[in-house]
Amino acid sequence: MPQLRVALAQVNACAGDITGNSAMVLDWTRRAVQEGAHLVAFPEMVLSGYPVEDLALRKSFAAANRSELDALARRLLEAGCGDALVVVGHLDRDDEGVRNAASLLYGGEVVATYYKHHLPNYGVFDEARYFAPGHDLPIVRLHGVDIGVVICEDIWRNGGPVAALGRVGVDAVVCLNGSPYERTKNDQRTPLVTRRAAEAGAPMAYVNMVGAQDELVFDGGSLVATSEGEVQARAPQFVEHLMVLDMDLAAGGHTSTDVSPEPVEEGTPLHFRPDALPAFGVERIILQPDPLPPYEPLPPPRTPEPLPEEAEVWSALVTGLRDYVHKNGFPAVTFGFSGGIDSAVCAALAADALGPDALYGVSMPSKYSTEHSRSDAADLAQRLGCHYEVHPVADMVEVFVDRLQLSGVAEENVQARCRGITLMSLSNQLGRLVLTPGNKTELAVGYSTIYGDSVGGFAPIKDVPKTLVWRLARWRNAEAARHGETPPIPESSISKAPSAELRPDQVDTDSLPPYETLDEILDGYVEGDRSYADLVAEGFDADLVERVLQMVDRSEYKRRQYPPGSKITFKAFGRDRRLPITNRWREVRP
Amino acid sequence: MPQLRVALAQVNACAGDITGNSAMVLDWTRRAVQEGAHLVAFPEMVLSGYPVEDLALRKSFAAANRSELDALARRLLEAGCGDALVVVGHLDRDDEGVRNAASLLYGGEVVATYYKHHLPNYGVFDEARYFAPGHDLPIVRLHGVDIGVVICEDIWRNGGPVAALGRVGVDAVVCLNGSPYERTKNDQRTPLVTRRAAEAGAPMAYVNMVGAQDELVFDGGSLVATSEGEVQARAPQFVEHLMVLDMDLAAGGHTSTDVSPEPVEEGTPLHFRPDALPAFGVERIILQPDPLPPYEPLPPPRTPEPLPEEAEVWSALVTGLRDYVHKNGFPAVTFGFSGGIDSAVCAALAADALGPDALYGVSMPSKYSTEHSRSDAADLAQRLGCHYEVHPVADMVEVFVDRLQLSGVAEENVQARCRGITLMSLSNQLGRLVLTPGNKTELAVGYSTIYGDSVGGFAPIKDVPKTLVWRLARWRNAEAARHGETPPIPESSISKAPSAELRPDQVDTDSLPPYETLDEILDGYVEGDRSYADLVAEGFDADLVERVLQMVDRSEYKRRQYPPGSKITFKAFGRDRRLPITNRWREVRP
Repeated sequence: MPQLRVALAQVNACAGDITGNSAMVLDWTRRAVQEGAHLVAFPEMVLSGYPVEDLALRKSFAAANRSELDALARRLLEAGCGDALVVVGHLDRDDEGVRNAASLLYGGEVVATYYKHHLPNYGVFDEARYFAPGHDLPIVRLHGVDIGVVICEDIWRNGGPVAALGRVGVDAVVCLNGSPYERTKNDQRTPLVTRRAAEAGAPMAYVNMVGAQDELVFDGGSLVATSEGEVQARAPQFVEHLMVLDMDLAAGGHTSTDVSPEPVEEGTPLHFRPDALPAFGVERIILQPDPLPPYEPLPPPRTPEPLPEEAEVWSALVTGLRDYVHKNGFPAVTFGFSGGIDSAVCAALAADALGPDALYGVSMPSKYSTEHSRSDAADLAQRLGCHYEVHPVADMVEVFVDRLQLSGVAEENVQARCRGITLMSLSNQLGRLVLTPGNKTELAVGYSTIYGDSVGGFAPIKDVPKTLVWRLARWRNAEAARHGETPPIPESSISKAPSAELRPDQVDTDSLPPYETLDEILDGYVEGDRSYADLVAEGFDADLVERVLQMVDRSEYKRRQYPPGSKITFKAFGRDRRLPITNRWREVRP
Repeated sequence: MPQLRVALAQVNACAGDITGNSAMVLDWTRRAVQEGAHLVAFPEMVLSGYPVEDLALRKSFAAANRSELDALARRLLEAGCGDALVVVGHLDRDDEGVRNAASLLYGGEVVATYYKHHLPNYGVFDEARYFAPGHDLPIVRLHGVDIGVVICEDIWRNGGPVAALGRVGVDAVVCLNGSPYERTKNDQRTPLVTRRAAEAGAPMAYVNMVGAQDELVFDGGSLVATSEGEVQARAPQFVEHLMVLDMDLAAGGHTSTDVSPEPVEEGTPLHFRPDALPAFGVERIILQPDPLPPYEPLPPPRTPEPLPEEAEVWSALVTGLRDYVHKNGFPAVTFGFSGGIDSAVCAALAADALGPDALYGVSMPSKYSTEHSRSDAADLAQRLGCHYEVHPVADMVEVFVDRLQLSGVAEENVQARCRGITLMSLSNQLGRLVLTPGNKTELAVGYSTIYGDSVGGFAPIKDVPKTLVWRLARWRNAEAARHGETPPIPESSISKAPSAELRPDQVDTDSLPPYETLDEILDGYVEGDRSYADLVAEGFDADLVERVLQMVDRSEYKRRQYPPGSKITFKAFGRDRRLPITNRWREVRP
C-alpha cells in the first residue's frame, strides 16, 4: 500500500489581499512540511479570497492573481517546500473567461490547474456571473498515489467530476471549499463528502475556509472521508486549524484517461444533462511514480465533538463580527446600549469577538426612556467590563420637534435619528465602527427607523429571529455560569417586555403580534416559501397572517438599506434575497 | 402574398401587479383589434413585470401568473378579441424550473408557450439565478403566415433560436423584449434586429417594454425589420405606444420540423457550444391555414427622428424618477435646494417628471451657507413654480456640536445629517418621498455624508457623472429658451464653483481634482476596466490617478448604502456592480 501524509490547511483568507493570502499559504505550508506532510491543501480561492464578486471581472486583478501564484511556487521552493504538493485555490483568466481555479504547485512550478466544473448561482452564489466552467480533470501521481482535485459545488451535483474520477481511477481526491455556514448545513455536508468518497472509490480530503467575508461566515469543519464512506478525521469549526494525517489508501497505478459519459436517461433533453455531455479531458501528470518507503503513520488526529446548536450559531456570529471589524481595520466598535435584549446580545457578541476594551457602549436616553432601561444598560457595561458613556438626546430631539412641529411617528423617529447622528458623530470623531443591533424579525416586518436605529456599518444579529436572540442570551449566560464567570446579559433585559421606548408606555406588542407567533409565521413565509393559504391551513389566524405578510411585503426598501450582517439561516435578508422595491405583488391584497 | 396586420404594444408594466398588467393587455388588445390587427405583441414578462428578481422563486407568484394568463385568454375572447393572436410575456413554472415565457393566446385559450433559450446573467441581469432555459420552438400558422416567437437575449447570441427558425422556415418572427436603456445602446440594438431578421429570412417585430422599474429604465423604441434587413418602422422612445402596421411578408407554407444542429467548429469543447447541441423541438400549430382575402394595407407609420444624446438621457432620467415615485404611490417629492447644480438639475427633472405642484424644495441653511446659495435656491423654486420652504438647521447643529464637542469632519457631517433628519421628518409628517441629489462622480469617490446628503428613497442622477450634469443643465435651459419658456436652472448654479458649504470658503476642488479630469479617470477605471498602469500610460498624472483610484476602491460601503437611481451608463454604481466591502484589493497600494 502506498502512503501519503496530507495536511488540510483550514485558513482565513481576506478577499483581495493577494499578497497577504500568499504569505499565509507559504507560512502554513512550512508548518505542514515540518510535520512531514507530502500534500498540503488550502481552501477554494485562498489566494484571492472568496467571494470577490465583481473584482473577478477586473483584468488587473486576474493578472495579479496569476503573477502571485507563479511567485508563490518559487517562494515555496526557496523555503524548502519544493517536494510537497501544494493545492491552492485562486482566480484565473484565460481565453474562455474567468476561472475559479485550483493549481498544484510542486518543485517551484505550477504543474497543473483545475477549473471548477459546476458554478453555483443560487442563494448567496453568483458564480455563473463570473466564471466559465471547466471541463478537464488533471490527475497527478505523487509517491505512487494518483490524486484528483475538485472544487466545492463539484461535489454537490450528481454525476459530476468525482464520479468521472471514480471511473477513470484515482487513489485520492482533494476537494477545496469556500462553503458558507448555515444552520444545520453540516447535517448535509458530512454525508455528501462520505458519499462522494465512496463514489470515487478513494478517500477524500475536504478542506474548507474559515472566517468571515462581509455577510458570509465560513465555519471550517474540514474533514477526511475514507473510500468506504466513513469519516476518518474532522477539524474543529470556526478556528484556523492545520489537520495533518496519513491517508488510508488503496493500491495505486491507474493509467486510464478514457472517461465515458454517464448513461443518459431516455427522453432527458441534453440541455438539462450537462454532466452527461462528452468526456472530460483527463490528463495524467507523473511527479513521483514510486511509493515512499514505508514509514510509521501519525496517530489519528483528535476529532472534536460537534457543537451544540446555540454554540454553533454564537460562534458564527462572533466570527462574522470579528472579521468584519478586523478586516476593515476598525480599532473599536460603538453602539447604543438601550437596556433591551438586542443591544445586550450584540454587546456580549462584541465582547467575545473583540474584547471588552474595544467596545464602547453609549446610553442615549430621551424623555421616554425608563429608569430600568438606563440601569440595565449600565449593568450590562459593568458585567462586560467595556467602556460606557451617557449622551442624552432629549435636547436635540426637542429642537427638531419644536422647529418642525413634529408629532406621532415623525416624533418617534426623530428620537431614533438623533441617536443615529450621535453615534455617527462619535464614530467620525473617534474612528469607531457603529454597530446596528436590529434582529431579523424587526427587519422582516420593517419595525425600525431608517437612518435611526438602522444606522451603522454592520448588523451582528441581522439574520437572527427575535426568539433565537432570547435563546442565545440564555445560552450565553448559562455558559458563563457553567464556567464560573459573570453572566454577561442582565436578567431583566431577557425577561422584560420588549419596547422601543419612543412614546410613553410603548411595548412592541402594540404594533406586532407576540414574537413566538410572529417568528413562526415569518419562518414559514420567508424561509419555507409558504403562501397565505398554506399558513392559514396550518392553523394560523387568517387576519394575523394577512397583517404579517403585508408588513413583510412592504418592507423591502428598509431591508435593502440595512447594513450587512452575518448570514446564518437559509434565506437571509440581504444580498441573497433580492426583491424589487417598486413592486405591487402582495401575497395578500390589502 | 399573404397579409398580416401586426400591432406592437409598447407598454409600461409594473413588477408584481399581475392583475393591473393583465387589464392593460386586455385594453391595448381591444384598441389594436379596433385598428384591424391580427397579431398583437406585448413585451417580455408583461404580465408579471420585469425584473421581478426573487419573486420569480415564489410558488404562489408563479401560480398567480399562470391562473391570470388563463383568465386573460378567456377575457380576450369575451371582449371580442378571440380572432387576434396575442403574444404575452409572463413568468411560468414547470417540473424543470421557473421559466421566462411567451404565450400565444387565441380563441380564448393558450395555444402555445415558448420558453426563453438564452438567459442573460451579466450586468443588471441575473436570469441564470431564476430561470431554466427552454429548448423548444413552437411555430403557429395564422392566416397562412408561419410565426415564430423568441425573447430578448435569444437574439443577442449567435446561432440561437432565430437561426434555427430560419433553417426550419418561418414567415415572421416576433421578439418580446425587456431591454433596459443604456447610453448608445440603440446603436447596437437596431443593427442586431435587422441582422437577425435577415438570418431568419423573415421580418421581425421587436417589441420592447417602456417605463422604469427600480434602477432599470426601458426606452421602448420598438421596431419592425424586413426580411432584407431594413428597418420598416420604428416606435418612439420613452412613451407608451401602439404601433400598427402591415408586415412585408413573403409566401408561407413551411412544413419542416427538422432543425439540424449548427456545424461545430473542430476542437470546440461542447460545454462551450450549448447552441450547437441537439436539435430544438419544433412544433407547428395551425390556427388559420389560409391567407386572408387581399385587403388595403395601412399607410406606413411615421418613424420619429432619433433623440439627440442629451434629450435621450434626460428622458431616461425623467422616466426613472416618474415611475419610481408613481409605482411606489408617493403623492409628492421633497429634497434640499442647496443652490448648487445637482439639486437644481434634480429639481428640473422632478418638475418635468411629476409637475411642479408635486415638488417641495427645502432650503436648510447652516451658518456656513452663503447668501448666493440661498438666493439661487429661491430663484430655482420660482423658475419651476414649485413649493419652497426654509428650515434652518443651525440650531440643531449647534446642540450636537456643543454636547458632543465635535470638530473637523465630524462637525461637517453633522450639518448634512441634521438636513437629512429634517427632510425625513417632513417626509414622515407629510408623506412626501425624499430624493437624493448626489451624482455619480461624488458617489464613485465617496464625496458625500452617509445618513446626511445620501438620505432619501431615490437618487435621480446617481448614474450621471458631474460633467454630464452640467451638460444636461445647459441643454435643458437651451430647450426651454428654444420653446420660449423660462430656463428652469439659474445660470449662476451652472457657472459657480461647486461647494458642499460645510466649512467657510470650502470648494469641491479642496478635496477633489477638477471634475473634467476626475470624470475621465473614473470613466477609464470604472467603465473601461483600465488599470493604474493603463491610465498612467494614457497620459494622466500618476499621483492623481493613484489618489482617485484609492478614493474609488475605499468607497464601496457608501455606494452600497446609497438609494437606488436610474441606470443610464454601462456600469452603474448599484446592483450591477458588486464588490466586497471587507476587501483589501487596491488597484494601487497605499
